[in-house]
Amino acid sequence: MNKQHFSTPVALGSVKVTDAFWQRTMELVRKEVIPYQWEVLNDRVKDAAPSWCMHNFRAAGRLMRDKKRKGAEFVAPTYTFRGFEALPDDPEHPEEDRFYGFVFQDTDFSKWIEAVGYSLAQHPDPELEKTADEAIDVVCAAQMEDGYLDTYYIINGMDAAFTNLRDNHELYCLGHLVEGAVAYYEGTGKDKLLRAACRFADFIADRFGAEEGKCKGYPGHEIAEMALIRLYEVTGEERYLTLSRFFLDQRGQEPFYFVEEEKARLAQAGKLKQQAKTNLSYHQSHKPVREQDEAVGHAVRAVYLYSGMADVARKMGDEAMYAACKRLWDSIVGQKLYITGGIGGTHMGESFSYPYDLPNDTAYSETCAAIGLMFFARRMLQIEADSRYADVMELALYNTVLAGMALDGKSFFYVNPLSVVPEACARDERLQHVKPVRQKWFGCACCPPNIARLVSSVAQYAYTESEDTLYTHLYMSGEVTKRFGDQEITLVIESGMPWNGHVKATVRVKEPVQGTLAFRIPGWTSGAQIDAGGKQQTLKGGYACLSGVWQDGDAVEFDFPMPVHMVAADPRVRENLGKVAFMRGPVTFCAEEADNGDQLHLLRVACGSGDVAVGMENVFGHETAVLTVPGKRTVLPEAGGLYGAAAPVKEEDAVIRLIPYYAWANRGLGEMSVWLRG
Amino acid sequence: MNKQHFSTPVALGSVKVTDAFWQRTMELVRKEVIPYQWEVLNDRVKDAAPSWCMHNFRAAGRLMRDKKRKGAEFVAPTYTFRGFEALPDDPEHPEEDRFYGFVFQDTDFSKWIEAVGYSLAQHPDPELEKTADEAIDVVCAAQMEDGYLDTYYIINGMDAAFTNLRDNHELYCLGHLVEGAVAYYEGTGKDKLLRAACRFADFIADRFGAEEGKCKGYPGHEIAEMALIRLYEVTGEERYLTLSRFFLDQRGQEPFYFVEEEKARLAQAGKLKQQAKTNLSYHQSHKPVREQDEAVGHAVRAVYLYSGMADVARKMGDEAMYAACKRLWDSIVGQKLYITGGIGGTHMGESFSYPYDLPNDTAYSETCAAIGLMFFARRMLQIEADSRYADVMELALYNTVLAGMALDGKSFFYVNPLSVVPEACARDERLQHVKPVRQKWFGCACCPPNIARLVSSVAQYAYTESEDTLYTHLYMSGEVTKRFGDQEITLVIESGMPWNGHVKATVRVKEPVQGTLAFRIPGWTSGAQIDAGGKQQTLKGGYACLSGVWQDGDAVEFDFPMPVHMVAADPRVRENLGKVAFMRGPVTFCAEEADNGDQLHLLRVACGSGDVAVGMENVFGHETAVLTVPGKRTVLPEAGGLYGAAAPVKEEDAVIRLIPYYAWANRGLGEMSVWLRG
Repeated sequence: MNKQHFSTPVALGSVKVTDAFWQRTMELVRKEVIPYQWEVLNDRVKDAAPSWCMHNFRAAGRLMRDKKRKGAEFVAPTYTFRGFEALPDDPEHPEEDRFYGFVFQDTDFSKWIEAVGYSLAQHPDPELEKTADEAIDVVCAAQMEDGYLDTYYIINGMDAAFTNLRDNHELYCLGHLVEGAVAYYEGTGKDKLLRAACRFADFIADRFGAEEGKCKGYPGHEIAEMALIRLYEVTGEERYLTLSRFFLDQRGQEPFYFVEEEKARLAQAGKLKQQAKTNLSYHQSHKPVREQDEAVGHAVRAVYLYSGMADVARKMGDEAMYAACKRLWDSIVGQKLYITGGIGGTHMGESFSYPYDLPNDTAYSETCAAIGLMFFARRMLQIEADSRYADVMELALYNTVLAGMALDGKSFFYVNPLSVVPEACARDERLQHVKPVRQKWFGCACCPPNIARLVSSVAQYAYTESEDTLYTHLYMSGEVTKRFGDQEITLVIESGMPWNGHVKATVRVKEPVQGTLAFRIPGWTSGAQIDAGGKQQTLKGGYACLSGVWQDGDAVEFDFPMPVHMVAADPRVRENLGKVAFMRGPVTFCAEEADNGDQLHLLRVACGSGDVAVGMENVFGHETAVLTVPGKRTVLPEAGGLYGAAAPVKEEDAVIRLIPYYAWANRGLGEMSVWLRG
Repeated sequence: MNKQHFSTPVALGSVKVTDAFWQRTMELVRKEVIPYQWEVLNDRVKDAAPSWCMHNFRAAGRLMRDKKRKGAEFVAPTYTFRGFEALPDDPEHPEEDRFYGFVFQDTDFSKWIEAVGYSLAQHPDPELEKTADEAIDVVCAAQMEDGYLDTYYIINGMDAAFTNLRDNHELYCLGHLVEGAVAYYEGTGKDKLLRAACRFADFIADRFGAEEGKCKGYPGHEIAEMALIRLYEVTGEERYLTLSRFFLDQRGQEPFYFVEEEKARLAQAGKLKQQAKTNLSYHQSHKPVREQDEAVGHAVRAVYLYSGMADVARKMGDEAMYAACKRLWDSIVGQKLYITGGIGGTHMGESFSYPYDLPNDTAYSETCAAIGLMFFARRMLQIEADSRYADVMELALYNTVLAGMALDGKSFFYVNPLSVVPEACARDERLQHVKPVRQKWFGCACCPPNIARLVSSVAQYAYTESEDTLYTHLYMSGEVTKRFGDQEITLVIESGMPWNGHVKATVRVKEPVQGTLAFRIPGWTSGAQIDAGGKQQTLKGGYACLSGVWQDGDAVEFDFPMPVHMVAADPRVRENLGKVAFMRGPVTFCAEEADNGDQLHLLRVACGSGDVAVGMENVFGHETAVLTVPGKRTVLPEAGGLYGAAAPVKEEDAVIRLIPYYAWANRGLGEMSVWLRG
């Protein structure tokens, strides 16, 4: 690692996104998703499963208040395990003082406040801020005096706290609270929630660590690792960095903490003969993190972990950790990545499958995992601006992440298959995780709020900065301002992405400024034209680095040719042998039944990439590129049995129409397929 | 239906199978499987899961004996539900008086005694018969005075008997007991077990029926329907026919019995708000049987039901029932049949999937289901000798049924995939039901004893008879004797099946006999040559019916050309579009890693059927046909990412070697595939 190459995301307050493509999505999040989510948090949406999130904070808050009133030492009610998801016996009349929902339900608030923080950084909104401040009051009122803040245990009984780190998400709740608190502080300058998060983190730092007598556990669902680095960056308190690194150092050491913990639970329950059943690789705790080299287990957990590892590697100069990050990155990108930027080949454990196992129909490819892959990619970019990371980040963003939300912002995919047959989803229980249309909002509301926080902060993936360089990783029209020493450069960007590769960046300065502007050359282009106005150009890691003294009005223009790519997968990917997919720029395309009729598997591509026509069309109120591909369709036999003599199939001409993958399933129920027979 | 066309299986005592191919398999069953199974029934096999079967009968028998000793009215112990599979808390020290194993564990004995009965009919074996008689004594000692005989309830408490017909297999136990008792009676002439089975059936007939006050339930797992017909045929007692028809008439009538039963159980458990969750189609109880037209649900249950339906249709002249049987047959054969004769596309519920969904790797295709399909096919043949039924029966037999057992008779497949990649089975939980090598013996021992009873009685699938016709459905060397009026014809058959299509049938008679000998013309041949020695030939339903007066030494010779067929599936079968499979005669072939290296999906067939060479080879001590297919193998790229520009793949010549599907997995762990890219 070379510290000179390190960069950090540009503060959201220094960015404006005015891009038509992104404006639409960001406004949906601001105007639809964030307000809707607040209603969900308060169980006020009729057709969505209740969150119970604010209910739980209020219930915990009452416990805190009553304790003060009585002046007695606080004793939490006796712990009763009510399952991973606790639901009221009578849904019409939930009990006021009970915990309901999933064990991690507190994070619904944390994710929401994080998105709110990002949104307020760019769009002041006094009413939203007032709502958020009131919510923060409710949350902070639930915090125990010692700093502990997880309503599941506060309500159900603190005697069981920290007895099941593997499953019960206490440290996950800490992580999300920290992320939300930092974002809200950065977006508004208000630190009430940040102080609460610090107190919870301090409580954990006192309890967990390498020192004798401290707990040697670590999160069952990773996120605290990267969150604590943000807390360290915003507060400068070393103990958060130490705690994060402790969690990473400890993970996967023998004896395995989750196994020992499970044995202790079994012993306490008198089940002495029962074997511990912990699946260590599910939690990436099967071996020390620096020794890991294959991306395994729950995909969201994995990329959250790897993000934390990249952060700690950067902060501590930990080369072994960085080497592990690179191996894990290569494992994903070389063997386990969907062409839509999705990850997680199997719904069993929502996990990575084995190398090259990338099924299209039973894919999990969770929206949250694609978001997590962006986290990981951005953190790798922060260590070294290498466009390979940005290419994957862009692929995940424009395809799986955007596919997660309907074009009207009102429904969401959690699972993002690359091939869908509605009859199969309806009749085949193996596909019970695959929904052929987006869903309203689940009880386990991870993906919609994750999309909200990602989209609201998308500019932090577009731009990072080091002392002397401003990196542009993704292209979107707008402005970004960076200080070079005592001076500022504002870069005004006009971009045609994702529909064309024309980019113009105009410099606004009060007086000439010396600095480097680094622009990514996308991996999907070749023969890029750069007009740098005479500035010194260096190509480094796929970035055009333009250095010199910038005058007001200086402009850089890029022309990134954006041809249609007809793509094949490595032949080891059994699912896709003999098939092709189409990409153009960062966008992966797919065939939908609405355009091509049903039984999409009967289609075959009968041309080269050069024969594909590209057009811009307004489909369902959204301007989008559409590809037209000359093809053939197998004609179904009129009679005959299930099996017959192999003979050349009868085919008829077909014009295959492809739309961007992210835009699928906005026109009702139907088949979809990314890969077509070639 | 035309009663003139009805036929019944030839008694096993009238048949000899001397065929080299079948002798080997039947001897394995007689010398290996049946003795081994007896050890398993008595929990004496170290490396197999305990059956607990005889343990349970002995425990129940002690309860009966103690009752008599005390002279008090019998009171069963209080019912404690110990789960669908009850295991001892301490496996080293099971409690003598407890029920262990699955709720249907009694059937381990019933299936064993059935196979023993068939075997003894053809191979007297005093020692085996003595063991069987002693086992029967143990079983009969467990029977209650009123005839009830299911050790699960006898031991756990009779108050819960008949409270869960859906799941707890009481009527399934009745059905298997009847099948076993009839076979043992027919094989040995001993009726002790038959009388016990009649008493149990009488008990059920008193309790279940259309009459007011009787229970309106029916089996959760079908088999009693067809078993009762056998009992009717052997005893002549109408009440067994009536009971069988009642079960069929009642099935799927509203209100749905299983739903009402579940509601009653929930009510009794105080769970008034819980919804009943019965999946009716899993049990084929979603609509009246005469209205069913798609094969759905648990595949073994389904074909057992359809077999009973065909029996009742024949016995009662029930045209609506027969029409339903034909529709259900067409549903299976037209849309849901593997090319290996297997059925059950999904492990979820071990069920039929939706039409044309025939995945190769996640297939369930249970050995028992293929056996059940033979039951159904034979019963359809008994109504009308149509070779379409026999073709499928033969396909199931020579492929999936035989694949169920290793060539050494010592291990078994329950699940019969058409494509296996060991790494996938090891690492992909979606394939946890698929074993890449045969297993010793499961706790749930359905398939091995089912193979044993099928193979021991295979001649009953080869030959059926009506008053004036002897039907030969399957060809195997040996003898079959049939009475025509007061006279007998013995047919001595010499057959080269399944390796060649030469068949010679020589007539042995004491004096000339008038009669019809009907021989199936297999569906896989064309241009069959028949030398009927001048007898009158009629072709009917795919059978060559030869009529006239038969003299001693008359011979009929057939030459059924047996070319290699390169087969394609209907294009609606998504899995197999662009792929081919190879068949020759009744045998389906497959590629194994042992012959072709790994990554079998890289292979491609590059020839027509005419270019395939056929050879006979001794592979692993077994003489078998081997196909040699000119092909190509995709060369793996040396470098490059997971996705790249689509380009013609680099291929090298490959000689693809195929062995019979039934013989796969006898040479260690490796990949296997039936379908190859064409």
